[in-house]
Amino acid sequence: MNKSIFYHAGCPVCVSAEKDILTLIGQENVEVINLGEHQGKIIEAENVGVTSVPALVTPNGNVLHINFGASLDDVKRA
Amino acid sequence: MNKSIFYHAGCPVCVSAEKDILTLIGQENVEVINLGEHQGKIIEAENVGVTSVPALVTPNGNVLHINFGASLDDVKRA
Repeated sequence: MNKSIFYHAGCPVCVSAEKDILTLIGQENVEVINLGEHQGKIIEAENVGVTSVPALVTPNGNVLHINFGASLDDVKRA
Repeated sequence: MNKSIFYHAGCPVCVSAEKDILTLIGQENVEVINLGEHQGKIIEAENVGVTSVPALVTPNGNVLHINFGASLDDVKRA
């Protein structure tokens, strides 16, 4: 199975969701990307359909938006 | 590890999320509850903090609302 990608922006909602996701899916199965620290990855996230963080992109390309932390526009302005 | 609970209402968004969640976490680790078919469970879901479906309640009690399918009020009216 390919890895899932968990996009977040370091906000408390994201961090809480991240811990649960890593516990449930297994740390070795998830690549974690902090868009607040890696703004260059925002385009990549948008291209796969991410519109808010935290979001989990599954190996088959589905985007699961989790709760609602911050819009990508907020992260760009951070 | 206790099971997670995945609440959904049978809508296409839910079913798509369900497939991915079950694949990622493992079917044996998730109890799936269709609130559209089991309206009596809606109170239970609300009590643990579910406000929309699909939602995943993790073993430690965190509620991860996934995308936005339908509010619980919509399910009550279904």
